Amino acid sequence: MTQPPKTPLLDQIHLPADLRRMDDSRMPQLADELRAEMIDAVSRTGGHLGAGLGVVELTLAIHKIFDTPNDRLIFDVGHQCYPHKILTGRRERIRTLRQEGGLSGFTRRAESEYDPFGAAHSSTSISSGLGMAVASQLSGTKRNVISVIGDGALSAGMAYEALNNAGALDARLIVILNDNDMSIAPPTGAMSAYLARMASGRAYMGIRERGKQLTSYLGRSFDRAITRAVEHARGYVTGGTLFEEMGFFHIGPIDGHNLEHLLPVLRNVRDHAEGPVLIHVVTQKGKGYPPAEEAADKYHGVSKFDVVTGTQAKAKPNAPSYTNVFAEALVQEAREDDKIVAVTAAMPAGTGLDTFDREFPERTFDVGIAEQHAVTFSAGLATEGYKPFAAIYSTFLQRAYDQVVHDVAIQNLPVRFAIDRAGYVGADGPTHAGSFDVTYLSTLPNFVVMAAADEAELKHMVRTAAAHDTGPIAFRYPRGEGVGCELPVRGEVLEIGKGRIVREGTKVAILSLGTRLADSLLAAEDLEAAGLSTTVADARFAKPLDRAMILKLARDHDVLVTVEEGSIGGFGSHVMQLLAEEGLLDGGLRMRSMVMPDHFVEQAKPEAMYAACGLDRKGIVDTVFKALGTDAGKISTGATKA
Amino acid sequence: MTQPPKTPLLDQIHLPADLRRMDDSRMPQLADELRAEMIDAVSRTGGHLGAGLGVVELTLAIHKIFDTPNDRLIFDVGHQCYPHKILTGRRERIRTLRQEGGLSGFTRRAESEYDPFGAAHSSTSISSGLGMAVASQLSGTKRNVISVIGDGALSAGMAYEALNNAGALDARLIVILNDNDMSIAPPTGAMSAYLARMASGRAYMGIRERGKQLTSYLGRSFDRAITRAVEHARGYVTGGTLFEEMGFFHIGPIDGHNLEHLLPVLRNVRDHAEGPVLIHVVTQKGKGYPPAEEAADKYHGVSKFDVVTGTQAKAKPNAPSYTNVFAEALVQEAREDDKIVAVTAAMPAGTGLDTFDREFPERTFDVGIAEQHAVTFSAGLATEGYKPFAAIYSTFLQRAYDQVVHDVAIQNLPVRFAIDRAGYVGADGPTHAGSFDVTYLSTLPNFVVMAAADEAELKHMVRTAAAHDTGPIAFRYPRGEGVGCELPVRGEVLEIGKGRIVREGTKVAILSLGTRLADSLLAAEDLEAAGLSTTVADARFAKPLDRAMILKLARDHDVLVTVEEGSIGGFGSHVMQLLAEEGLLDGGLRMRSMVMPDHFVEQAKPEAMYAACGLDRKGIVDTVFKALGTDAGKISTGATKA
Repeated sequence: MTQPPKTPLLDQIHLPADLRRMDDSRMPQLADELRAEMIDAVSRTGGHLGAGLGVVELTLAIHKIFDTPNDRLIFDVGHQCYPHKILTGRRERIRTLRQEGGLSGFTRRAESEYDPFGAAHSSTSISSGLGMAVASQLSGTKRNVISVIGDGALSAGMAYEALNNAGALDARLIVILNDNDMSIAPPTGAMSAYLARMASGRAYMGIRERGKQLTSYLGRSFDRAITRAVEHARGYVTGGTLFEEMGFFHIGPIDGHNLEHLLPVLRNVRDHAEGPVLIHVVTQKGKGYPPAEEAADKYHGVSKFDVVTGTQAKAKPNAPSYTNVFAEALVQEAREDDKIVAVTAAMPAGTGLDTFDREFPERTFDVGIAEQHAVTFSAGLATEGYKPFAAIYSTFLQRAYDQVVHDVAIQNLPVRFAIDRAGYVGADGPTHAGSFDVTYLSTLPNFVVMAAADEAELKHMVRTAAAHDTGPIAFRYPRGEGVGCELPVRGEVLEIGKGRIVREGTKVAILSLGTRLADSLLAAEDLEAAGLSTTVADARFAKPLDRAMILKLARDHDVLVTVEEGSIGGFGSHVMQLLAEEGLLDGGLRMRSMVMPDHFVEQAKPEAMYAACGLDRKGIVDTVFKALGTDAGKISTGATKA
Repeated sequence: MTQPPKTPLLDQIHLPADLRRMDDSRMPQLADELRAEMIDAVSRTGGHLGAGLGVVELTLAIHKIFDTPNDRLIFDVGHQCYPHKILTGRRERIRTLRQEGGLSGFTRRAESEYDPFGAAHSSTSISSGLGMAVASQLSGTKRNVISVIGDGALSAGMAYEALNNAGALDARLIVILNDNDMSIAPPTGAMSAYLARMASGRAYMGIRERGKQLTSYLGRSFDRAITRAVEHARGYVTGGTLFEEMGFFHIGPIDGHNLEHLLPVLRNVRDHAEGPVLIHVVTQKGKGYPPAEEAADKYHGVSKFDVVTGTQAKAKPNAPSYTNVFAEALVQEAREDDKIVAVTAAMPAGTGLDTFDREFPERTFDVGIAEQHAVTFSAGLATEGYKPFAAIYSTFLQRAYDQVVHDVAIQNLPVRFAIDRAGYVGADGPTHAGSFDVTYLSTLPNFVVMAAADEAELKHMVRTAAAHDTGPIAFRYPRGEGVGCELPVRGEVLEIGKGRIVREGTKVAILSLGTRLADSLLAAEDLEAAGLSTTVADARFAKPLDRAMILKLARDHDVLVTVEEGSIGGFGSHVMQLLAEEGLLDGGLRMRSMVMPDHFVEQAKPEAMYAACGLDRKGIVDTVFKALGTDAGKISTGATKA
């Protein structure tokens, strides 16, 4: 590993106030040092690199010109906040990024007063900033609020809702559009094309060309007077940029790596802005680190790496990732069925749909960071007999909950939801955990909800979803590698609402949904060793439940424990509701439901998270012992029901 | 009641195909008859009037020019679909609108092949239409897809997400922007102002004025060369309308009541359109019926009315509505605390915040149909010490679920959620039912979730929410009138997580959350009459639970029944989880949890809906009897636990 870089100027900066005492002329060198420091830190921890490198100068300039933390600086998404953390009193801890007990990889209110709003999901910064700007107006406090948002994040509806509201409210909000022509994937959508045209200075469509098109649409038979009136009206109202039409004063594009341009513009905006202002800044993701600049993904998220060569350390995988298994299974099914199409909301690589796209480009749709649209667009495809697979992380599917309810569930349309990153996700922490999907989906009529216990199960579920044509169906699977089980050549169509007994016993039944099956089996070994004959079942379906199997488990055992990697209100609740209705909780059965705890769980390695939450082998064993009113030392080995 | 109107032309139209055989010249008379028929129908049923009146000519023109149902016509929201229903084979049933067993008040796939996509929530039509357009492209079917969307609906993010995607995909989608400068409330937001400028032909901001502003921002010290470059770049890229910048060919504004303009434009678009087209049509909500034209809300939603005078039948209220009680309580609290602010997403009258706005206009924020932004905007206000009350219907809060999770719950910000229309809503049917909020909110860490049993409780909860400053808090209440109980002069601050015993007994415990308390008390009378001594408790809190009270109810009774007007996974599930953990389901207690059934419940009067779902007095009694393994005829009146 290389030595940390020499940073004589940066060493003088403990807080942004120090920066403000330094002359403008030192800023370029300081930017170089800040960049070197960040590269070194991320080379040791892994994390988000490209985004931070792109905003080194911008971050410096904002903290130099504005009076943070009294002025509020909000970074959208937060991927790009590492330079900000280094400048705002967190340099000492920067090499703990994303580690258990260390700095968050995102902005976080609890971490610093310089983080007035936490982020991790995209496109929230204009809304939150507008709230702060309005608050300062209401309280008569003169304060700048600066929201830094990427061009990719502008494809999300909530960014537009906020622009629309801000443009009308006339509050003093400064939006800095960090246009790097790149979110995580190459950007999609008309807005992105518009920004590119603006940044390149190319004209979109000349008046003459528009005139020609108009004539061809309206045709000769159409009243010429109306044509003229329409053209006249249009001529009058056009002329502003899209952001000006939305009520913003619009400055830019400006080179975001040139401090001689950035500093005076920000200073003037600070001193003269009244209503909402949008500053369009063009930056380069990965700027200043050649391996990042040259990589297709601009080193968006990296493992630990060698600073000199840029080579990332790759842990040798033990098994294929769930994401890859999903992607390959979907490709396999799509070869058999040309109605299968795939939809992603700006995450083609993250969801594995880049694989699908390579084989079926015309059947792959990346709609931008736009989960709401992704779901209803899928619903539209489903009405026409297509089989859309909407592949969306559990945490991001929250963005489309109403569309799931209103457009899919109520209409009972066969949209397939491939829910990646379900459960705990490790270093990305609570904002990215997929905790609630089983609860918020299983409560909906018409839905089928599955959870994969391993990668072979996932393959079956992809095929099952392809085959299920009578209503919506979802299957969830975790981040990371599979358990290493053998994969079938092709998945089988599972019977809807049928679980499977994985191991038979007589006294204790562990009923697992999804990923906790392996730990359930290990727990069963411990219980067996302690004299408790244990059945383990894989529910496969949170909805509909395998009623017959569950009722039999309840009748034939003294203890029934459900285990799931999800929050309260999900699978365990559905099981208890069934058992209560059937009178099986009226006496004789010790029922326990193991779910995630009632707090947001901080970043750590997933195994540590399971242990802390009691959702591991030991936690399951403890739950059974506690249910029996005993502990490992004094197990009842008495007669069992069976 | 007046006689149905004479409609000689309309009588010849059974399906749109009949319309296509009729000469263009008959269309104005047909429009008059269609309008008269619709007014007569709604005068008998009540329902949405203004929106339908505004699109009579547009609906006629679309069905005349396009080959529905093979061409797909999607009405956004669906408020405006009554003329469409009359023209598409549903005229015979038009006087059953919104009645039990009758036509839905919205478009509905199950009702007609002329309704290719159901709606009720706003802003879904471009996404669903794009899905259909892409499907037709993929399958090589030449087909027109027409999405009719109002200007108000354009303030929602998902409409923008869809425009952004459509503009880039270049699919053959026709969007008709029905600009009536009016959604339910007067429109808000920059987009609406933009449309108004376009419709009126007024220029927004001249080049000269922009130049002046720019100079004042950039200042004299700023490099003139950059100023010139910036102006130059802008000059090149501007010129199109906002929709053209988004990739649409843009036609209009066109008078939406003039069939001589509408028909040729639609015909030409049909024959020549290639990529996405947006036709901007200006209409008048309530058009052609003077009482509607003159009313502030354009008769958006009406009761039965007298056609001649326009006077609506008003049922004499027995008690104030929950909405009014909420609004007045909030005004009362806001007089005491100037940090209280109110946020609505385009529903000032529906949520009662128009009352608040009259007294505190500067503390009221109508952000447009933009629930996502509303919630994160509220979160921003909360970070600055304000006390935002986001008043959003239960069903619409689904639109902002991720913002509730990511921006409010994870950051533990004290946003107050006033959740109106919780539970069944009657004539608006399943799309508007507030069924899932207790489930999807109570599963979130940090949240406090309350439900009001009556209007006095609602007053307490408003004050409790105002006082609760340590995290997010939500309170839900139903549509319609209160139960008529006495109202306190001012609400009290409830202790967080404390329920109340309303009636004491010894054998059966009914634990109600929210509105089902009155029926629970009636059920208790029946049970008592049958010899079953019955306790009734009002939980008040779904989260945190009143653990002590619930454990005591479980220990002291033979039967414990939870009752709530919500879906599985909510209050009852939390109670069972607690009891399981505490070992109280291990024997001796008969626990039952009464929730909404696992299907979407069709429109009917609320009382009929409760009865059908077993969530009424009789349903509760039956559940207790069934739990005891007996029925009304043979009640055990044996010794009780206590």
